[in-house]
Amino acid sequence: MDTLFSGVSVVTMDEQMRVLPDAYVGVTDGKISYIGNKAPEEQPQMIVDGTGMVLMPGLINCHVHLPMTILRGYADDHDLATWLNDYIFPREDRLDGRCVKAASLLAIAECLRFGVTSISEMYNFCDEIAEAVAESGIKANISRGTLLFDAENFDFETDIRCREMVELHEKWHNFDRGRIKVDASVHAEYTSQYPLWDAVAEYAYNNNLAMHVHLSETESEHESCKDKYGLTPAQVLDCHHLFDNGGIAAHCVWLEEADRKLLAKRKVSAVHCPISNAKLASGAADVMAMVKAGMNVCLGTDGTASNNNLDLFEEVKAAALMAKLKTGDPKAVSAQAALMMATVCGARAQRRERECGMVKVGMDADLILLDFTQPHLIPCHNIISNIVYAASGHDVCMTMVRGKILYSAGKYHTIDLKEVMKELGSYVMPQIFAEKE
Amino acid sequence: MDTLFSGVSVVTMDEQMRVLPDAYVGVTDGKISYIGNKAPEEQPQMIVDGTGMVLMPGLINCHVHLPMTILRGYADDHDLATWLNDYIFPREDRLDGRCVKAASLLAIAECLRFGVTSISEMYNFCDEIAEAVAESGIKANISRGTLLFDAENFDFETDIRCREMVELHEKWHNFDRGRIKVDASVHAEYTSQYPLWDAVAEYAYNNNLAMHVHLSETESEHESCKDKYGLTPAQVLDCHHLFDNGGIAAHCVWLEEADRKLLAKRKVSAVHCPISNAKLASGAADVMAMVKAGMNVCLGTDGTASNNNLDLFEEVKAAALMAKLKTGDPKAVSAQAALMMATVCGARAQRRERECGMVKVGMDADLILLDFTQPHLIPCHNIISNIVYAASGHDVCMTMVRGKILYSAGKYHTIDLKEVMKELGSYVMPQIFAEKE
Repeated sequence: MDTLFSGVSVVTMDEQMRVLPDAYVGVTDGKISYIGNKAPEEQPQMIVDGTGMVLMPGLINCHVHLPMTILRGYADDHDLATWLNDYIFPREDRLDGRCVKAASLLAIAECLRFGVTSISEMYNFCDEIAEAVAESGIKANISRGTLLFDAENFDFETDIRCREMVELHEKWHNFDRGRIKVDASVHAEYTSQYPLWDAVAEYAYNNNLAMHVHLSETESEHESCKDKYGLTPAQVLDCHHLFDNGGIAAHCVWLEEADRKLLAKRKVSAVHCPISNAKLASGAADVMAMVKAGMNVCLGTDGTASNNNLDLFEEVKAAALMAKLKTGDPKAVSAQAALMMATVCGARAQRRERECGMVKVGMDADLILLDFTQPHLIPCHNIISNIVYAASGHDVCMTMVRGKILYSAGKYHTIDLKEVMKELGSYVMPQIFAEKE
Repeated sequence: MDTLFSGVSVVTMDEQMRVLPDAYVGVTDGKISYIGNKAPEEQPQMIVDGTGMVLMPGLINCHVHLPMTILRGYADDHDLATWLNDYIFPREDRLDGRCVKAASLLAIAECLRFGVTSISEMYNFCDEIAEAVAESGIKANISRGTLLFDAENFDFETDIRCREMVELHEKWHNFDRGRIKVDASVHAEYTSQYPLWDAVAEYAYNNNLAMHVHLSETESEHESCKDKYGLTPAQVLDCHHLFDNGGIAAHCVWLEEADRKLLAKRKVSAVHCPISNAKLASGAADVMAMVKAGMNVCLGTDGTASNNNLDLFEEVKAAALMAKLKTGDPKAVSAQAALMMATVCGARAQRRERECGMVKVGMDADLILLDFTQPHLIPCHNIISNIVYAASGHDVCMTMVRGKILYSAGKYHTIDLKEVMKELGSYVMPQIFAEKE
């Protein structure tokens, strides 16, 4: 046994939603090897005293754009179209691989600090993102978001974005025994056309890749699609078989009932991003309706340019609160349900449900410790309530992926933040943010 | 000069909303005595190196029930009526002064930890709450929420709650040169009747006290009042002169346009409590409409039983997000506006606008430092955006009231948390929470 957590309160998130006070959890070869109410007979290499702490599965952030972290706070309080076209896209055009890698490491440090052990990423410069993921030790499903504006001249073999998607798949899929997975991706219905959909759908199906798309984020996007095709974004993409192999659809704010049933049938998980959707005034996704229709609903922060942080605990609380507000029912999305969205449902969305999302013997030791001794978590009548409604990612004091401690007590064990800051400070920032235009 | 903050980024929240990079702020005799871009000539007793830090006014939490902190997480995911009647009221009946004082100290520790330097409190056992406030060094407007269910036998002189209000006023109003102020209070329209309103209104008017009430928190409360009186809660209370001397109205979720105009005229500030209102599914107050009607709108956490913490930074972010969601306009309640609600608007609501809410020479040194060196606050294109959208109360590393450091780097300088925990652990908790019923 490599590590033993002793005297710790465990929120297992298992099928019985067991919460174990004063328990012992052992980790061997990267996996959870022991859970009990007394110390195991086997001597561990290292004991972590969990007194006053809560041990739980690491959170899973199912929709993020790591490199956008360098645009945090760059443009706020705009609608999605203005924000994208006038601020974000022009800046993104000036990114390069070196800056993307540094920004990705910065963002991963933030994820680990806030207890996120696995992410689903969509962006470009994916090779550099994969390098950052590989070095940092976090888990990631990475996808190259493809776009198409010129359908006439499209060729899957020569299209630069599609080539990058293929190269990403060939180089990184199942890296480190599946720590990195590669998803196929079409950025969104409104940024692409059917020849791309057909080609990417075929590639995904032939290679058994899940799909990662933005879907029905804004009303105008949803309605424009209906005007154009007479079908919703979910329907038109489905007609082109984009969801034949399942996957994840980010946002889903404007889904209709038929969309929800369709996506449930296709085993497409919705990634609820309540803070980003509120900040851009896109609306509030109807989580209860999606769940009732049989969809798996997980959580995402979206990029930090529209959030503006990667603290998924904020999303957990927001998911619970906004569902109550939307339905007028304070019982909608209970604390338990919200926490499931960030753990087991996230794992399912990433096709990692047999691997993580619970504290369970045999699963990967993707675990986090929360310090429950601070005033804002006292008293503790209900651990899950305190996690969801009172805690924040700042309460995370240790983040472990596959048994390896990647963050603890202010220290990042795999990321040299000083080096990252040097990259961002001396090279990337002036280049990108000089007021030239 | 007692204290000098050097090399610090200052968010002044002054009339010009100045943000001063690499500045110096001096504190003398509890007041801000110097603001400049170089060190003052006078030698300070103590220098605080502000490199990588942001100095800003302490936040003001205008609606809280400190002692309810012992009910944190005790009952979640219920509607307001069930929550109050089946869970909260029965538990509150078993509180006593000793437990209230300990719980208040615990709650004040949390306030200070999250950068709150002044609060508006409404509860009972106010003598013990005032003792906790006095000992801790925080500022507070304290009010004894009065109720009346038996109008027949009401007498202001003998009513226990009114007597407590009078005693609170006589004993604590303007304690420590106004660090404590006492407000008059009627708990809410739906928990009282007109003889109380008349009497409390008269007492407030004669003693120049502001009023603190709950107002139109839920739709059913608002509509029941209209059924009963043919007037909204704001209107019926106003008919009984409750707002003649101004004050603060918590929640204001279901105000109508006429209410907003009336309250603006009466100089009643609305305390927006977006998280509590969402959690109890009460609704979302229309901040933009209140501001347009001329009302001063500030922020409150409400008690931790319905939030479930006292991190007002969460309310700042929620106020900005929920306004965008409610109006469909991402420009509604900008980052600046949200931060004003928690500072200058809070000071105005507390009648402390000449005393605090800004970093300005002559004002009380109610100041907080935020650590801006952590990954989630990098890069920093816009300090106010990072404070509102990316930071949290956990980033506060020092809280000062009237020049005295009350919290710094995990230490509470005026509160013995171990002693508080002993009170809560060995005495209060078993008594209150033993499963007897």
